[in-house]
Amino acid sequence: MLCLTTPTREAWLDAALADLDAVLIDHAHCEIKAATNALSLASRVPTSMAPRLAELAEEEVRHFREVLDVLAARGLSLGMPAEDAYAKGLRAIAHRTAPSGRSPTETLVDRLLVAALVEARSCERFKLLASALAARGEAELSAFYDDLFASEARHYRVLVDLAIEALGGDEQRVRARLDALAVEEGMMVAGLSDLAAVHG
Amino acid sequence: MLCLTTPTREAWLDAALADLDAVLIDHAHCEIKAATNALSLASRVPTSMAPRLAELAEEEVRHFREVLDVLAARGLSLGMPAEDAYAKGLRAIAHRTAPSGRSPTETLVDRLLVAALVEARSCERFKLLASALAARGEAELSAFYDDLFASEARHYRVLVDLAIEALGGDEQRVRARLDALAVEEGMMVAGLSDLAAVHG
Repeated sequence: MLCLTTPTREAWLDAALADLDAVLIDHAHCEIKAATNALSLASRVPTSMAPRLAELAEEEVRHFREVLDVLAARGLSLGMPAEDAYAKGLRAIAHRTAPSGRSPTETLVDRLLVAALVEARSCERFKLLASALAARGEAELSAFYDDLFASEARHYRVLVDLAIEALGGDEQRVRARLDALAVEEGMMVAGLSDLAAVHG
Repeated sequence: MLCLTTPTREAWLDAALADLDAVLIDHAHCEIKAATNALSLASRVPTSMAPRLAELAEEEVRHFREVLDVLAARGLSLGMPAEDAYAKGLRAIAHRTAPSGRSPTETLVDRLLVAALVEARSCERFKLLASALAARGEAELSAFYDDLFASEARHYRVLVDLAIEALGGDEQRVRARLDALAVEEGMMVAGLSDLAAVHG
């Protein structure tokens, strides 16, 4: 799906369905992190590109509010976020696999592509959740994740387009870098512990 | 105005009007910081209070988008933010004047009150800008700052209300702490260098 090279294991879906509350709490934190990251990137891209990141951030905050509504309906507490090993791992991969003497533009492109990969993986997993929840008759939560699946796919495309634009329109080079990062992301995901978390 | 003890000097307004472009760029960064801070606070407050911070964050992101439109119309670049000496100074004041052994709740209340003070000062200065711009015939930018002035006043109240709620409804104690912080904020503002920045 999208650029992903390794599908999520069935075991992750089992773990997620066994503790949906934990997934929802983690999901709320993911929306906060995505919004904050988009705002941080808005200062780093050429200003003509900033409005698209601001729009993306606004949508992430809106999703955060929606997840808070779900938490409230289930009587759940948000609390502080757990360490995000997945995002940290992705950033480490981008750093480790970067050409030596990575330019500021290349660093920016990598940040945009790491954010795109996070969206791609969320997108894949939200689709898995939406289907499994529908099969279990949980229509409302299924529809919620189906809507979010579509948003995450759109965000993925926005971020990849911004990376291409940041690199002066060199789509081929961005695709090559994205493919290389996606291979590494796939290997990392294969080593995850199947926790009840969006990227667990 | 609001809880402020020291009005902004005329010299700040002169500096701001002499370099409105710099004020607008700084203002864009202030909206990013306010949104990010509200999202960070949303994980720290009791979950029942989080939706009000999420709503506040969404509004700050919307304002950020509006300021980006103004920057685009004037051909300005956003770039990276300058160090925020004012916010840093306010946090230092809260830390320095806190009772020894400040509890997690007291730390949270201080963070909410520091954010409220930032909004109060923005509010005061946006009003000054709105009036001065109207007098100069810059109706559009004046109306923009007039709208924002009203929003900042509302945000101030939301943050103070959240602080009271976080402290179990003890309004008197929150007001006393806010007043003490406002006195220190006023002394800090009296020592600022009248730069063309929202809190300069």
